[in-house]
Amino acid sequence: MAEKIFEKKQLASKKEDFSGWYTDVILKSGLADYAPVKGCMVFKPYGYAIWELIQKVLDEKIKANGTKNAYFPVFIPESFLDKEKEHIEGFSPELAVVTIGGGKKLDEKLVVRPTSETIMYSMFSKWISSWRDLPLKINQWCNVVRWEKRPRFFIRNIEFLWQEGHTVHSSEAEAKEQVNWAMKTYEEIYRSFLAIEGITGQKSESEKFPGAESTLTLESLMPSGMVLQSATSHNLGQKFSKSFNIEFSDQEGKKSFPWQTSWGLSSRSIGALIMAHGDDAGLVLPPALAPIQIVIVPIFKGKEGDEAIINKAKEIKEEILKDYRVELDLREGYSAGWKFNEWEMKGVPLRIEFGPKEMEQNKASLTKRNDGQKISVGLGDLKEQTAKILDKIQEELFQKNKKYLLENIREAADYDDFKKIMSGPKGFIKAYWCEDPVCERKIKEETKATTRCLPESGAQEAEAGKCVYCGKPAKNKWLFGQAY
Amino acid sequence: MAEKIFEKKQLASKKEDFSGWYTDVILKSGLADYAPVKGCMVFKPYGYAIWELIQKVLDEKIKANGTKNAYFPVFIPESFLDKEKEHIEGFSPELAVVTIGGGKKLDEKLVVRPTSETIMYSMFSKWISSWRDLPLKINQWCNVVRWEKRPRFFIRNIEFLWQEGHTVHSSEAEAKEQVNWAMKTYEEIYRSFLAIEGITGQKSESEKFPGAESTLTLESLMPSGMVLQSATSHNLGQKFSKSFNIEFSDQEGKKSFPWQTSWGLSSRSIGALIMAHGDDAGLVLPPALAPIQIVIVPIFKGKEGDEAIINKAKEIKEEILKDYRVELDLREGYSAGWKFNEWEMKGVPLRIEFGPKEMEQNKASLTKRNDGQKISVGLGDLKEQTAKILDKIQEELFQKNKKYLLENIREAADYDDFKKIMSGPKGFIKAYWCEDPVCERKIKEETKATTRCLPESGAQEAEAGKCVYCGKPAKNKWLFGQAY
Repeated sequence: MAEKIFEKKQLASKKEDFSGWYTDVILKSGLADYAPVKGCMVFKPYGYAIWELIQKVLDEKIKANGTKNAYFPVFIPESFLDKEKEHIEGFSPELAVVTIGGGKKLDEKLVVRPTSETIMYSMFSKWISSWRDLPLKINQWCNVVRWEKRPRFFIRNIEFLWQEGHTVHSSEAEAKEQVNWAMKTYEEIYRSFLAIEGITGQKSESEKFPGAESTLTLESLMPSGMVLQSATSHNLGQKFSKSFNIEFSDQEGKKSFPWQTSWGLSSRSIGALIMAHGDDAGLVLPPALAPIQIVIVPIFKGKEGDEAIINKAKEIKEEILKDYRVELDLREGYSAGWKFNEWEMKGVPLRIEFGPKEMEQNKASLTKRNDGQKISVGLGDLKEQTAKILDKIQEELFQKNKKYLLENIREAADYDDFKKIMSGPKGFIKAYWCEDPVCERKIKEETKATTRCLPESGAQEAEAGKCVYCGKPAKNKWLFGQAY
Repeated sequence: MAEKIFEKKQLASKKEDFSGWYTDVILKSGLADYAPVKGCMVFKPYGYAIWELIQKVLDEKIKANGTKNAYFPVFIPESFLDKEKEHIEGFSPELAVVTIGGGKKLDEKLVVRPTSETIMYSMFSKWISSWRDLPLKINQWCNVVRWEKRPRFFIRNIEFLWQEGHTVHSSEAEAKEQVNWAMKTYEEIYRSFLAIEGITGQKSESEKFPGAESTLTLESLMPSGMVLQSATSHNLGQKFSKSFNIEFSDQEGKKSFPWQTSWGLSSRSIGALIMAHGDDAGLVLPPALAPIQIVIVPIFKGKEGDEAIINKAKEIKEEILKDYRVELDLREGYSAGWKFNEWEMKGVPLRIEFGPKEMEQNKASLTKRNDGQKISVGLGDLKEQTAKILDKIQEELFQKNKKYLLENIREAADYDDFKKIMSGPKGFIKAYWCEDPVCERKIKEETKATTRCLPESGAQEAEAGKCVYCGKPAKNKWLFGQAY
């Protein structure tokens, strides 16, 4: 389908119309499409391939952690959500509810899972009785449904894809370790694979997961100046184990409620990837997660010699670059320039041109997608050089994103300054907050900025100050931003 | 949790109470559990691990076929199903329907996908306009929902897991090739991985997929004498492309409706695996799909020397057998005999005992799960011998299943004979049928046997005969059986 959807300079400007650009680049690069039901989306093969690559690297880490995959039902009896008061209050406005099954009105309505704490923990209470059953560490890759009113591709949809890890521990310390493990793992996925920097910290009481004791979050900054909550890891304490009657006997036979965690990373990470790196020519994908890492475009000049060029290009793909995800574009009826534009739109990290000149000189002409840099490489060095160049692209994307984030954390001298920043460049603001939810709510109403987190580093800034809103004493500097 | 659930001789007899045995073995081996919603089930880690292994081998074949994974919404507008008359008639009694979203009654009810033809093809009509867009070959791994009244673990549940392939072609011949490719691939998955023989053939008009021109099916025989429809591949012809207005222009600019296929294999295959190979001691898993292929149980005799045994056992796991999925059972407080029973229950294909005697003689004592055969192997030969023994187990399971199937295809001399077989050993019956749906329905009502398929080989039996029910002329011998 690619040939139909590509026309040059068809994107809105990323700088001038970020939202328009985002939608354009998704539709025109073939990542996704609108679904018939408003708020749902279709993951097209190119977009889904990125999700498969994220799944692969994250799933390996989850398994290495001793967490095992399982699958729990998509339908949850409505009454289950009621068992944890904060949980149901948080999720009830967003539920999709099945009321008819097999042609009949159901006796009890079924909720389509918005998250699986309740259905999983009702089972855990059957499975756990002794310290020998702990830790229980379960992960699930699945679809979840939350009725979003302002849908946006990947970032916020009625249905999205994710993994949700759920663990049960015999000690609070072990549960905390698991929460931290999940967050460190998400940081690594974002930094080393998505090439996106983020800030980790604790959520405020009003922003934490409904039903959790505390929530660790990774917050990234998008080029629009808006913040994306990128992954979260929840310390559930004993709240759910008490609600769901999960009990274990320790080695002395004493009964206790275990400590639980849950943590998730979703397909919204693909949205972050698109926003963070793309430009006015289209997507820019980091090599680690690019479904096509290298595209080879043969350059034809006349009938003679074309076959030799094709054969050599095939050899480059199948022998020299066999360890990479390579596409050889042999389509007829398209100019090389047209192909270049299309592969730029699709964000392929490295383009190799191979024509009569390259054939004669036994070399390849490389172009980096992220900065347009051209590099001529002899075929004898191509394998080694490709590895280095792809690593370099990955690193350049990360460093550029990190620089952007660091340059856009501002301190607000006072509330006027705060408001000015939030109407201007946005980005992150670091400011003292007294931790009174009233100030938090007022700031949100007046500036659209919410508390994103209490940064891990922030807790070390021992000096106390005054709340940026009310002026009362404040222990910590919090991170604020306008969130997607 | 394993230590809690295992007690010796806790299974119903497979021969005397097949259904009871089936449920017992699933619950007690830790494959699955009942879910709170009747008809739903929980895939526990051990059961889900088998599904992941099936996914891995099948996904590779699907990708090698040039079919790409994608993801379409779980919610389908109710009106979409109406577009293909036979399709809606087939599925409407089984639908789960969402009527409330985000706290409000929905304007249009949403069906939770029972299969994705309608939602996918509404998108395909947007994506396809020219021969250049074809073939379009999409696959999806997902959950689907059908409101089943008689649920049974893995075999028939309200929600199950599957892959559904959907392809669109510019010629009828190419579509037929794709239908055949899918069925050949499913046969290979069943034979080479699940170690289950089956018979392939065409479904009758009344048994084919609702909305298909024709359906190819793979039918396997379970030890209960009942038949399991194991995978299907549908030739949709132009029925859906006409209903969903999918059109393409050929190279001369002429517009046509393309030809479509869909094909699926589901988590019911795990049910087949359990039924086909298990015995009164528990599961028997084929090595190709066993989450744990080998279990090493160290035998301790006294304090002295135990550490040396553990170290050597670790070496066997991590060095000699590093290419396999190996579990080293170092749990304390359980006798070796207790552990043997538990690993038998879980169907691990090969058990290795390693104790003082083995240590002294530099060997390992192997026991095959499928027939209890014991083999003593020197550690120097262990790597090579293990490969051979696992291959042998895989082959033995397949041959045993194949033999059972072949011995249980019977010819019915007349309708009395037919009824006798179906009340006695059951199994497959090969019989002439006039292809009148009235006879088919009567046979079903009177014997519970349905037409399973017109076997591919059956078409070659040129000699015509008389319908086993009405005595009128019949061209073909069909395969009958009582199906799950």
